[in-house]
Amino acid sequence: MDNEFHTIIVGSGSGGLTVAVGLSKLGKKIALIEKDHIGGDCTNVGCVPSKTLIHASEHVGGEIGLEPEEVLEWVRERRDDLRDEETEFVEELPNVTLIRGHARFVDSKRLEVTSRDGNIRVVSARNIVLATGSSPRRLRIEGLPNTRLLTNENLFEMKKAPLHLAIVGGGVIGVEMAFAFRRLGGDVSVIDRGTRLLKVSEVEAGELLAERFVEEDIGLYLESEVLRYDDDTEILHLKDGQRLHDVDRVLVAAGRVPNLDLDLDKAGVEFHERGIPTDGLGRTNQPHIYAIGDINGDSAFTHSANHQGRRLVRVLAFPFLPRPGKQPHYPSATFSDPEVAQVGPTLQELHKLYHPELVSTHLVPLSDTDRGYTMDVEHGFVKLNVMAVTGRLLSATIVAPAAGEMISLLTASVNHGISVYKLADLVFPYPVLSDAIKKAANDYVFSTLTGLHKELFRYLRYRLRRR
Amino acid sequence: MDNEFHTIIVGSGSGGLTVAVGLSKLGKKIALIEKDHIGGDCTNVGCVPSKTLIHASEHVGGEIGLEPEEVLEWVRERRDDLRDEETEFVEELPNVTLIRGHARFVDSKRLEVTSRDGNIRVVSARNIVLATGSSPRRLRIEGLPNTRLLTNENLFEMKKAPLHLAIVGGGVIGVEMAFAFRRLGGDVSVIDRGTRLLKVSEVEAGELLAERFVEEDIGLYLESEVLRYDDDTEILHLKDGQRLHDVDRVLVAAGRVPNLDLDLDKAGVEFHERGIPTDGLGRTNQPHIYAIGDINGDSAFTHSANHQGRRLVRVLAFPFLPRPGKQPHYPSATFSDPEVAQVGPTLQELHKLYHPELVSTHLVPLSDTDRGYTMDVEHGFVKLNVMAVTGRLLSATIVAPAAGEMISLLTASVNHGISVYKLADLVFPYPVLSDAIKKAANDYVFSTLTGLHKELFRYLRYRLRRR
Repeated sequence: MDNEFHTIIVGSGSGGLTVAVGLSKLGKKIALIEKDHIGGDCTNVGCVPSKTLIHASEHVGGEIGLEPEEVLEWVRERRDDLRDEETEFVEELPNVTLIRGHARFVDSKRLEVTSRDGNIRVVSARNIVLATGSSPRRLRIEGLPNTRLLTNENLFEMKKAPLHLAIVGGGVIGVEMAFAFRRLGGDVSVIDRGTRLLKVSEVEAGELLAERFVEEDIGLYLESEVLRYDDDTEILHLKDGQRLHDVDRVLVAAGRVPNLDLDLDKAGVEFHERGIPTDGLGRTNQPHIYAIGDINGDSAFTHSANHQGRRLVRVLAFPFLPRPGKQPHYPSATFSDPEVAQVGPTLQELHKLYHPELVSTHLVPLSDTDRGYTMDVEHGFVKLNVMAVTGRLLSATIVAPAAGEMISLLTASVNHGISVYKLADLVFPYPVLSDAIKKAANDYVFSTLTGLHKELFRYLRYRLRRR
Repeated sequence: MDNEFHTIIVGSGSGGLTVAVGLSKLGKKIALIEKDHIGGDCTNVGCVPSKTLIHASEHVGGEIGLEPEEVLEWVRERRDDLRDEETEFVEELPNVTLIRGHARFVDSKRLEVTSRDGNIRVVSARNIVLATGSSPRRLRIEGLPNTRLLTNENLFEMKKAPLHLAIVGGGVIGVEMAFAFRRLGGDVSVIDRGTRLLKVSEVEAGELLAERFVEEDIGLYLESEVLRYDDDTEILHLKDGQRLHDVDRVLVAAGRVPNLDLDLDKAGVEFHERGIPTDGLGRTNQPHIYAIGDINGDSAFTHSANHQGRRLVRVLAFPFLPRPGKQPHYPSATFSDPEVAQVGPTLQELHKLYHPELVSTHLVPLSDTDRGYTMDVEHGFVKLNVMAVTGRLLSATIVAPAAGEMISLLTASVNHGISVYKLADLVFPYPVLSDAIKKAANDYVFSTLTGLHKELFRYLRYRLRRR
């Protein structure tokens, strides 16, 4: 058995697979180590099943009349089909040796891979790429039996929808699953320590989702904490004497921790609890060891891991090409109802970077657009944070039914320097909700003008819908 | 009564209102002439009621369980509310004299306005802006009583949904209304002379909508023509002996004609049957007379009329500023199911402009994206037409549920020179249907590379969904 490789990749999720596929095609001899399923969290216990559930849950009851159990089964089928397709694809990749097992460093050049049945194989390579991703932060809840405890890792294995699902954590996963499981028909309660939902997003996004929770009858307990569970009474006790009744499942979605169980110290790789620091091109303090995706702590998205993987292929395969520039601002999307999409820092973060007067903020509700009127849209907005005078777009947030599709214009604007002046002059088809982008851009333009010009620009909008 | 104005505007639709509002705010003395309702076709008999109907028709039956009659009533209420709001706004505009009536030129400086009750007022101005829009092309159908004949002008006045609506014309209006009225529950048949639906769009868009028609059980009669109607049997006779049974209403949506009933020859304004030619800034052969919106034949959208109006305000109010550049490529959107959005010329049109080998075309079905997979999307695609080698985006078409929201990235790309190389490198949030844009851009990039590089770029997509 040949144990010498050009590159060893640990983890076959979005980041690792991208590198494996890229280098494989370039004829490099690759070892791809995976201790669980091919595809990583995204395919198996993340985006793919969660987005399938979000979509399918819309068809519970109503015209198609699916039962919750059918939806959960459908989610697994779709997930398994994709996993099988990806697994077959990887197994057929030329130049790639797929090794199943848990990898740990022996020294900075060698990894020891332990398979499930205890076999050990030692492999070495010129380059080592760590792409092991992250895991849900574990939380011990007093009195809660393991059979009632869920994370994203076992959530999609449930055969029946919970009668009352308590979700600990009001971040992206918590919010998405709250809407989806509420649609399946059960009660849902979300508990978070913070003062709002989606704390990494703009304040208005979290506030809006809280209003939506009320409409959907999803319980929301902010600035709260889970104290203990009583299995006999099925009561979940929260801080300040609050009690949630008839809770049969608790989903813990309280952050992620990087998967660092690699004996990194044996390789001399520096790390801290939030991950392995890199130079922005994925290089760790050990120049031949790279870390991409969730474990480097830069960004924890499938799409950012993919992008880092693409950049790394370029670095490893074409070292003679100029190095890629700094990483772009990655967009994010939460597939709530409505969706929340964002690119660049929040206003709060910007105020740490720039003097507040340098940042000009413009928020336009979707209900101020004509499409919002014809669609009778009650919730949602576009918020632009703009550098004063220059009109550079610093960051943007969209809350809208298809915000994930709408954000890319603004991702291009933030990363490729399309100024807000240009956005104000861009022609949008009539009538679309994206008109709120144009209105917000016009607001900025008008705010930079004086007197009559202000008035002029204020009114030269599509049609006449006023704030 | 003072009859001398700085500018006379004929028509209070999207184009005329934009100019009126802009110049009003700049203190210019304006006459705004309207022979019908404030807001023009868009507010009264166009985009606003049609998009409200399209949206509301989704709620017939199902969970909310609206009746078709309630939907039609709701459309009128929303339309009337917006019309009232706009009318009040216009009546309160400072410096604007609203004159109700039909305007015709007396000579190149004067217009005679005849009100409904026969009063005549002659007005004159330094600048005259013609923004009278367009009307549905009239079609005489032998045997069809007027009570059964519909155009967009009386369509939204119906109290009850037709049992079988025959639509003559498979363009934007025909297609949108076919889906909407089918949702109201009646039968719908579309008849068109051409070989496909949406003949101004890419071939694949029309073909896809034809498939959707089959799924929705909407009749489609291409390369056909209406010969006559038999009022006793309610049979609509088509070419080649085809018959549509139980047809109780016929909607004629067979193109638009510019509203040129202005005695243009008395002003020496040149025109032809497709409209009044202008210099791209709205100026006719008479340098003080302008024509914007549908009547100049450049583009027939609410958003293009608005854009032309904005440009004209700049020209009229700030003659010292540099002239605006040439008009952008206006995007279009058809609110069918799925939506069709487009910017720039179709491939057929491009082949008249460039040698076919200079245009590189890349089409990616939405089902090839992971979001398409999780949403189980069967229809839709992104098609990019790219200038070979340079990577300039010449035109693009998106067919997708929210295509109207997705197109603006590509409008910016076509009009502001964001190359397809940049689109290939842009990070989209995962998973979104817009990923098809990235895939199509990657296809272009890979097509410009050779050998290994090709293979590499072919596979460096998000995840592994293959064509």
